[in-house]
Amino acid sequence: MAGEFDRIARYFAPLAGPEGLGLRDDAAVLTPPDGCQVVLTVDQMLESVHFLPGDDPALVARKLLRRNLSDLAAMGASPLGYLLTTALPVATAEDWLARFATGLAVDQEIFGLRLLGGDSSSSRAGIALSITAIGSVAAGTALTRSGAQPGDELWVTGTIGDAALGLQARLGEWVDDEGVLTRRSLLPDPRIGLGLAGIASACIDVSDGLVQDLGHIAQASGLAAVVRAGDVPVSAQAARFGFEALEIRLTGGDDYELLLAVPPAKAEALQAACGAVPVTRIGYFEAGAGVRVLGGDGKELAFLRAGWAHF
Amino acid sequence: MAGEFDRIARYFAPLAGPEGLGLRDDAAVLTPPDGCQVVLTVDQMLESVHFLPGDDPALVARKLLRRNLSDLAAMGASPLGYLLTTALPVATAEDWLARFATGLAVDQEIFGLRLLGGDSSSSRAGIALSITAIGSVAAGTALTRSGAQPGDELWVTGTIGDAALGLQARLGEWVDDEGVLTRRSLLPDPRIGLGLAGIASACIDVSDGLVQDLGHIAQASGLAAVVRAGDVPVSAQAARFGFEALEIRLTGGDDYELLLAVPPAKAEALQAACGAVPVTRIGYFEAGAGVRVLGGDGKELAFLRAGWAHF
Repeated sequence: MAGEFDRIARYFAPLAGPEGLGLRDDAAVLTPPDGCQVVLTVDQMLESVHFLPGDDPALVARKLLRRNLSDLAAMGASPLGYLLTTALPVATAEDWLARFATGLAVDQEIFGLRLLGGDSSSSRAGIALSITAIGSVAAGTALTRSGAQPGDELWVTGTIGDAALGLQARLGEWVDDEGVLTRRSLLPDPRIGLGLAGIASACIDVSDGLVQDLGHIAQASGLAAVVRAGDVPVSAQAARFGFEALEIRLTGGDDYELLLAVPPAKAEALQAACGAVPVTRIGYFEAGAGVRVLGGDGKELAFLRAGWAHF
Repeated sequence: MAGEFDRIARYFAPLAGPEGLGLRDDAAVLTPPDGCQVVLTVDQMLESVHFLPGDDPALVARKLLRRNLSDLAAMGASPLGYLLTTALPVATAEDWLARFATGLAVDQEIFGLRLLGGDSSSSRAGIALSITAIGSVAAGTALTRSGAQPGDELWVTGTIGDAALGLQARLGEWVDDEGVLTRRSLLPDPRIGLGLAGIASACIDVSDGLVQDLGHIAQASGLAAVVRAGDVPVSAQAARFGFEALEIRLTGGDDYELLLAVPPAKAEALQAACGAVPVTRIGYFEAGAGVRVLGGDGKELAFLRAGWAHF
């Protein structure tokens, strides 16, 4: 394994933009766009917690970056760049790092991003990674979890539950011949650039499970949220699993779709803003507290758990 | 151990400022001061790599924060806030987290900072921590490593080598009765707020060892740097170790003092800017490459290593 500074020069310096000062300085210097606020988020991925030891390093890199981009999307922010930390066991193969950097390069191109800086360390245990993403929003337009109003409708982008089913396949619980759900588990599509400011009154990304994440909007907004289970959009691949997959669909993590509170009068504007990204109305907000999920008969469904949490 | 959301509410939400949105959102939203650029840096601290399992969690927290503040200081930036990631084994005592948060609270008060956001996870191995610090500089005034000019003098703040000797004491190699060097190892003093813009032509903080970090300025500036070993400032406590400690002094890490390239005409301005913080002239820059350390007889000294690196 090459030394720390050689590795930075070989794998990471080519990913850096001018703001990263060639990764040769103590910190990055960035000029935010005029009239903008900066938006900051950080997420980590640890071996055997957030990814499996055999996972493709390029996909690990891309998922780590995309999870952060999804957090920016949930704030209505546009990404500007990111910082990276790596903690690698001494035995980590040079090829692992090369593949990891390739994954970052691919997604930097797709999302128009540059590496701004970071920190590398040895690790006594498994691989530990984190990315801090920085973005910008026009001043005063950031979406939050707390702005939902009674009467707002609840919308969600894309389809829900694919990633959790894909993880089951990766764990050997079933065989994903087509690979579509497995891909959704490994490589989410962050919903950046939808232009939701002035349309959504609250937003969150579905990272820990729809019911749990919706609970965060309900709590922050001081409202109750109601979901019609039958309206939650499901991919053709996930639909095969039928009703028995309802719980994993509504409480499984890693979808990285956006849950949105939207006034009824803004429904058309929302669909226009989402363009080619599917968006589906699945419920509403009302006075009260908590999340209720209604079955086809209008009766409330109960779940054993709301979603993922780290204990 | 309390659940993830309980822990965030109990220990970290009280550390959050309004920009952190109570840590209840996907990301922090920050308004940089008018006419400023933002400066971003990240550092991690891993159990058994950067701190010892028995170290006081409050001091671990404060050192992690201060290492980041030192990086901002090296850019001439003023801190605005920080993001925190924690990865904790399930067996981590509740008291560890309480002490850790207390350390952050103390330094937030000292440095006028707020927690802006973060990410928490379980860990399969030891404790892993990182902080991303964000600061600001007046546009165009950031200090870098690449601005040194031939003829600039080399200055350093504070005293050098204390932290490396303190680490030796913590590892049981000698007994630090007074505790001064041990404290320097556990709790560095980041040199923020010195107002070095327009005075220093290049800057770096001494985190990996004076010789190695000076090498980064020399390389980035395309110059040679010369250090007069006898002029490097030493604390009264470290002076007891005499000449045999020279190597650890010049190549030991964790001092978090600033190394500065300063034109001779700016020497008085530098001393005025540093105020109560001692600053000492220890060498100069000239055409060429690399770092030379001169002994009392003017002859070049050789070292087995330049400083710390993670392999």
